[in-house]
Amino acid sequence: MAGSSFGNIFRMTTWGESHGKGIGVVVDGCPAGILLDEVKVQAYLDRRKPGQTKYSTPRKEDDAVEILSGVFEGRTTGTPVSMVVYNKSQKPKDYSAIAECYRPGHADYTFDQKYGFRDYRGGGRSSGRETIGRVAAGAVAQEALKELGVDVYAYTRSICGINIDESTVLRENIMKSPLYMPDLEASAKAEDALEKRMHEKDSAGGIIECIVKGMPAGAGEPVFEKLDANIAKAVMSIGAVKGIEIGAGFGAAFSSGSANNDSFYNDADRGIIKITNNAGGILGGISDGSDIIVRAAVKPTPSIASLQHTINKTGDNIDIEIKGRHDPVIVPRAVVVVEAMVASVIFDMLMASMFSNIGLIKKFFNM
Amino acid sequence: MAGSSFGNIFRMTTWGESHGKGIGVVVDGCPAGILLDEVKVQAYLDRRKPGQTKYSTPRKEDDAVEILSGVFEGRTTGTPVSMVVYNKSQKPKDYSAIAECYRPGHADYTFDQKYGFRDYRGGGRSSGRETIGRVAAGAVAQEALKELGVDVYAYTRSICGINIDESTVLRENIMKSPLYMPDLEASAKAEDALEKRMHEKDSAGGIIECIVKGMPAGAGEPVFEKLDANIAKAVMSIGAVKGIEIGAGFGAAFSSGSANNDSFYNDADRGIIKITNNAGGILGGISDGSDIIVRAAVKPTPSIASLQHTINKTGDNIDIEIKGRHDPVIVPRAVVVVEAMVASVIFDMLMASMFSNIGLIKKFFNM
Amino acid sequence: MAGSSFGNIFRMTTWGESHGKGIGVVVDGCPAGILLDEVKVQAYLDRRKPGQTKYSTPRKEDDAVEILSGVFEGRTTGTPVSMVVYNKSQKPKDYSAIAECYRPGHADYTFDQKYGFRDYRGGGRSSGRETIGRVAAGAVAQEALKELGVDVYAYTRSICGINIDESTVLRENIMKSPLYMPDLEASAKAEDALEKRMHEKDSAGGIIECIVKGMPAGAGEPVFEKLDANIAKAVMSIGAVKGIEIGAGFGAAFSSGSANNDSFYNDADRGIIKITNNAGGILGGISDGSDIIVRAAVKPTPSIASLQHTINKTGDNIDIEIKGRHDPVIVPRAVVVVEAMVASVIFDMLMASMFSNIGLIKKFFNM
Amino acid sequence: MAGSSFGNIFRMTTWGESHGKGIGVVVDGCPAGILLDEVKVQAYLDRRKPGQTKYSTPRKEDDAVEILSGVFEGRTTGTPVSMVVYNKSQKPKDYSAIAECYRPGHADYTFDQKYGFRDYRGGGRSSGRETIGRVAAGAVAQEALKELGVDVYAYTRSICGINIDESTVLRENIMKSPLYMPDLEASAKAEDALEKRMHEKDSAGGIIECIVKGMPAGAGEPVFEKLDANIAKAVMSIGAVKGIEIGAGFGAAFSSGSANNDSFYNDADRGIIKITNNAGGILGGISDGSDIIVRAAVKPTPSIASLQHTINKTGDNIDIEIKGRHDPVIVPRAVVVVEAMVASVIFDMLMASMFSNIGLIKKFFNM
Repeated sequence: MAGSSFGNIFRMTTWGESHGKGIGVVVDGCPAGILLDEVKVQAYLDRRKPGQTKYSTPRKEDDAVEILSGVFEGRTTGTPVSMVVYNKSQKPKDYSAIAECYRPGHADYTFDQKYGFRDYRGGGRSSGRETIGRVAAGAVAQEALKELGVDVYAYTRSICGINIDESTVLRENIMKSPLYMPDLEASAKAEDALEKRMHEKDSAGGIIECIVKGMPAGAGEPVFEKLDANIAKAVMSIGAVKGIEIGAGFGAAFSSGSANNDSFYNDADRGIIKITNNAGGILGGISDGSDIIVRAAVKPTPSIASLQHTINKTGDNIDIEIKGRHDPVIVPRAVVVVEAMVASVIFDMLMASMFSNIGLIKKFFNM
Repeated sequence: MAGSSFGNIFRMTTWGESHGKGIGVVVDGCPAGILLDEVKVQAYLDRRKPGQTKYSTPRKEDDAVEILSGVFEGRTTGTPVSMVVYNKSQKPKDYSAIAECYRPGHADYTFDQKYGFRDYRGGGRSSGRETIGRVAAGAVAQEALKELGVDVYAYTRSICGINIDESTVLRENIMKSPLYMPDLEASAKAEDALEKRMHEKDSAGGIIECIVKGMPAGAGEPVFEKLDANIAKAVMSIGAVKGIEIGAGFGAAFSSGSANNDSFYNDADRGIIKITNNAGGILGGISDGSDIIVRAAVKPTPSIASLQHTINKTGDNIDIEIKGRHDPVIVPRAVVVVEAMVASVIFDMLMASMFSNIGLIKKFFNM
Repeated sequence: MAGSSFGNIFRMTTWGESHGKGIGVVVDGCPAGILLDEVKVQAYLDRRKPGQTKYSTPRKEDDAVEILSGVFEGRTTGTPVSMVVYNKSQKPKDYSAIAECYRPGHADYTFDQKYGFRDYRGGGRSSGRETIGRVAAGAVAQEALKELGVDVYAYTRSICGINIDESTVLRENIMKSPLYMPDLEASAKAEDALEKRMHEKDSAGGIIECIVKGMPAGAGEPVFEKLDANIAKAVMSIGAVKGIEIGAGFGAAFSSGSANNDSFYNDADRGIIKITNNAGGILGGISDGSDIIVRAAVKPTPSIASLQHTINKTGDNIDIEIKGRHDPVIVPRAVVVVEAMVASVIFDMLMASMFSNIGLIKKFFNM
Repeated sequence: MAGSSFGNIFRMTTWGESHGKGIGVVVDGCPAGILLDEVKVQAYLDRRKPGQTKYSTPRKEDDAVEILSGVFEGRTTGTPVSMVVYNKSQKPKDYSAIAECYRPGHADYTFDQKYGFRDYRGGGRSSGRETIGRVAAGAVAQEALKELGVDVYAYTRSICGINIDESTVLRENIMKSPLYMPDLEASAKAEDALEKRMHEKDSAGGIIECIVKGMPAGAGEPVFEKLDANIAKAVMSIGAVKGIEIGAGFGAAFSSGSANNDSFYNDADRGIIKITNNAGGILGGISDGSDIIVRAAVKPTPSIASLQHTINKTGDNIDIEIKGRHDPVIVPRAVVVVEAMVASVIFDMLMASMFSNIGLIKKFFNM
């Protein structure tokens, strides 16, 4: 069944395999008039490129995006925006050894079960490069949200067991840290921990946090198209994500009503605010006007060089070592992906909230 | 925007407010020939009824389901199955005091922001009674899945900080525990903890776990209609759920590749199995044939009798005490709801997986 | 696959068989604040009831609609509006004779092929009574459109080969004619022609025309969610409809560019108008601000008393006579159904057009 | 709102403007294992190219298709198939004169109303070149349908008032006629009529007919996802189509029940057949096993060289002559487009019909 589209009003459709001709996305339902060009989109894509830390593997991907449609004289036209990144530097021979086996933690086995065979070349559609399309689409959503005063940004909260210290974080530190952690001290510790993991031929996981500021109240469509439900689907669809929480999240399960409830307060200067934000900005599936807080759990990179037990395609039990240098962690590369997916849902649901009341619709049509 | 439908092929559309005439669901895309009747559906609905423990509030809801269409001579006809539970015992006067204020932790504020007003009678569409439709639809999915050898069941894993001991759990204990915990010792401790919370005029949260056994490999549609992504949306859409995880979940964020990867093994008797199941039965968004493991974090009941600070509709800062007896915990009532949502996704995605390969389609049409 | 929902933002989900407990609809995505009550909806439903002319069969259906949710203090709440009409006067024994055969022109055969069996009681889901749900949903759309200054109305253009004379039609005559023809002379001739058909134990078809006035320009989403494409699907989904055209329709196929093109003209008083309207108000799939003109071809009633050849369920070639009084024409009963479907699409696509330009979205959110 | 995707299970998403970098499509939900390559797809695309008759305008479009993903070793992989045709020979200066006016019969005005501006270069997204994506997607559907024994083909039934003679048509003549008419005598007459139209600086419309052979009974999902309803939407979405009918179509409106009903007959050799086929292969919205017959009315080409009255962007009433050579007829170019859209719906609905009965689903999963 078709599974490569996401969104109701603002919809992305991605395509492409890691070793095919290219990877791309068609962004549909994008309102006309948004300032957009390849430079803007490239800035987001560059945040997913490996090779920026000493621990990631330098595969030298160019990943230059090209806009093929939907933009005219620097603005979106309202017609679909098609973007593509042509694959340049993927050498098939890097992966020939794995063609015959099912790597643990990878989708080799499940793709084979599903389709009857798999494109073994480097992970195909389940490869991390598939996120190129998502990030390009998220870039469009982000540029649109800027016009609406909504700000979406993500960062690494935790890697390899090293957590940021919330009392010392600064947003401007995110881009200074090679791991995108807003706490530079924690970032340094995490880099050391990762170096150690790599020497052990192993990998690490982590947690990504995404914040949405300036979100109007009222977005989200009960009971199934709730804002948090759509965010959950969007983020869980990212490869390697195994958990998602909003606000206090799993912490709420161990809390009490009196501690978890966010009290409302009408402040003389700021208007209606909440004293706490355990709800993470979403109540009853609808945005409440405060910051939206989302966290995603990312599992450790499955590709590790140490010895693993698995089976090959003919069913024999074998031992494998996946040669080559491997990124010991996926998390930093996924930060902009989480941001892209959240931004896309936010933009989609913001537009979807424009029909909640007939009075507002009449006003729109000047009735 | 329409937000009350869920599912692609097997789709539920729910309706109804807690103080309206009734609550119901239309189940669409249900294959013909499934054995279904009101007794079968009622069994699932009864598992959400309060009044079964000494700590829940005896509101004496009848909740007798009636099937209005889609069933003929004991089997589904393939046409929509419409089911309704008429509201009998909801007295509007119970809730008059809250009409003018925004209760912390409830959706009063957000519904008001969204629609311009709200149906203050007891929570309306954001009430727990809305789950009646979900559970009735889930019942249909469950009955269908029985025919396909797929078994979905849920239970309480943790309440008020008391966790089950995985080494002693027995599935048959779930229905013996008033909190639906498969570890009776933990259940007794949890009941005590809840009694204490209630005396403190407070509430507790917990974690629900849902298992799917017998799932064929290959279900899930990359990259956005992944099985875990749809499960995440389905479960997160349940009121009071603030987090969801698959398999090792957030634990994977603190693990290592060598520990988290599930090795494949070809067993002489059982065929291809996995030694561990940190993936929770889903790899690359597609079922891998092993048990699917899902966990949902449920926040503490927002309605507590102790003093809370909030604002009223005209913006004044006020203190309130929500009178009346309140369930100190939502978790047990939500167990069958989580089960229903997971079963619906599983059935939907199983059918969606029938087109992965043209060879299988040809076989279906006897080509 | 689920097939009982229609609409993107404003969505109806219908359910019910002619001989089940009832027939209903859930209207989802309805903005809050629309004036709605059972009396308003009943007025639309009454226009589909048989028994109003001397040629239709008096089955004495009550068809009193009941609103079960989604309305509070006379206005829609923004939550799903569930409406039901309980079946009262359908006697199963009326149809027992047909249980074993496949009536020509009816869906008996196809339903059997599809589901493996059929609910033989009077047509089940393929019965004309299924339109109750559509008309109730269309009523909600109509009431909403009134607030937006959009006027949708339909009438019979042609029955049994007798056409209205466009130069003499008056809108107010529609409700004076038992066949809903705005030309009373043609109406009288058509009644005579129908009487003749009935005596011949035969039936007749006709054409329904639907006009939309006051439609703003800009509604419709190229290239697949065009306004005319959605109208076509909506109207073609009505039972007994075999053709649909917009504006000049099939006439355009025999025309010339110079005759068919509608010239634009800027009139001092009325602003931008079109001299002709062969486009029927839709150009490039988008409304152009002039009247939308839709026509549907309705086939003759399949149930006729004269001798027909067919087969029974075991495959024997048989002759049948469908006893009982039969409506010799479906057309008048379908007029309000065509109107309902067109109104629903119009309302849906009007809302969908609110995102075409980021400037308008910014204005909506007061940016 | 997103409007560039079509289909439920088998879904196409098109993008591109006539003067942008290219035009393409992403075909999603395509089962793995279908034989596909650029040569196969090109054959379908070539049937839309102008320059094949003496009356069409030789713009020398190359339109070479390139497959960017979803195919591996000659077969579809089950992942999205992205195809693109890069624009080569569109000279912007051809159209500069029309930038400031609203051409009658074109979507200039409506696009402007909708988006706030339009890409004036040659029609942008409303251009006939948009059909490239549809035809490429239809090619995939056609190749899949071949595997399932379903045959979809279309031809011109009527042009400029000249109709084919059904008693003399031969399918093999379609490709011999430059107008794709299966009656070569009518084709010659039509070419003469077109030559005359062109000398008059005018254009002509026509009717396209599409046949589906070998369709199993049971496809189509009542009541809104009926087979005819989806075909109607698919075909009406094609630019220049103003009407669509199934089987007897508008003719049924003037027929009688006894003449219009198709009798069933159990033939000793051929099994269950219908004596006539006024239903056009669809009853109650579900395929009945006989040929599906669809007809589309195509309006005359709006671009004509003769004098027309219109307005310019600043609202002045002006006269224009659209210079350059214009195709006097759209119909032949649209034949493969109608075929593509019908084939896509057929394939989509065939797969959707696989869940009608739980027994068949059990069989599929070997239960």
